[in-house]
Amino acid sequence: MKLLKEKVMTEGIVLSDQVLKVDSFLNHQMDPELMREIGGEFARRFAGEEITKVLTIESSGIAPAIMTALELKVPMIFARKHKSLTLKDDILVEKVYSFTKRETNEITVSKKFLSDSDRVLIIDDFLANGEAAFGLARIVEQVGAAVVGVGIVIEKSFQPGARLLVEAGYRVDSLVRVASLEDGVVTFADELD
Amino acid sequence: MKLLKEKVMTEGIVLSDQVLKVDSFLNHQMDPELMREIGGEFARRFAGEEITKVLTIESSGIAPAIMTALELKVPMIFARKHKSLTLKDDILVEKVYSFTKRETNEITVSKKFLSDSDRVLIIDDFLANGEAAFGLARIVEQVGAAVVGVGIVIEKSFQPGARLLVEAGYRVDSLVRVASLEDGVVTFADELD
Repeated sequence: MKLLKEKVMTEGIVLSDQVLKVDSFLNHQMDPELMREIGGEFARRFAGEEITKVLTIESSGIAPAIMTALELKVPMIFARKHKSLTLKDDILVEKVYSFTKRETNEITVSKKFLSDSDRVLIIDDFLANGEAAFGLARIVEQVGAAVVGVGIVIEKSFQPGARLLVEAGYRVDSLVRVASLEDGVVTFADELD
Repeated sequence: MKLLKEKVMTEGIVLSDQVLKVDSFLNHQMDPELMREIGGEFARRFAGEEITKVLTIESSGIAPAIMTALELKVPMIFARKHKSLTLKDDILVEKVYSFTKRETNEITVSKKFLSDSDRVLIIDDFLANGEAAFGLARIVEQVGAAVVGVGIVIEKSFQPGARLLVEAGYRVDSLVRVASLEDGVVTFADELD
């Protein structure tokens, strides 16, 4: 996605070989027009998949997910990373390890919003080790619903998440794929093709 | 806002005299078309205010805020409730007490996204005691920017937040105002007029 690549090139800050900071347009300050275009792009890529729900995880996944759901005309659900006080019973729970924060969270979704007839598109802002995406997929599968695919805004292709998800049988569609952050430079995967 | 009132009446669940659960369309599962209409309504109400930024707090404020920002054609920023690992320095911090969770969070916004020339619209899903809104307003004022107003999806008018914000000089615009949850029934403020 050309516009997104330009944003990554002009505004992304390489903090280390592992960490790309994109807080000016994706996960702290957000560009709403870019979010709308991201939602449109996911909707196009997964057109014909008869998606019934879009699922993401708080917080940075919410904006791209709501725009995708708007375009697909289906509800969006965001999984919570911490148990809510008004969300006590009848919840689907999965453990998700965060390599960034070095902690395990129990992510939760209320049972009443997913059923075995659902066809779910998982959306997230970043894909690195795949922990969050796998956790969301397991939640969908707990109720016997289908994971149609995983839509990612920025994939860090040098980390194993995308490969592991594909090996597990999931369709992964990333809008930009970062092959390397070495020497403080963003190299995109398609530049290596 | 008629559509939103209908949603509250048909899907809202009164858990106690204090707690209204709206997780089917506002803060867990979200109705993207409703979010778009909410964004449009805030943009109309604050038209002519020359807003430069929309500010909210994770997580449930993000969807209404991004839709408002899309309509106003300005960036949206969400404050974080917990410090981010990639957001270490140059941050604006305010303490916010959550009556629901009975804990104090340090909410943070990166300094680089706010300046003294900004005119900021604060958006949140709920207004109860006003702690989050006041915290966001203090963050805006730390850099000398102006708080144009506070746009709230659901105001619980029987709690003091709205009154305290107005007394402090802020414009508060709530799309629906709930006067009471007594006896398990949602009574709207305009029904008492």
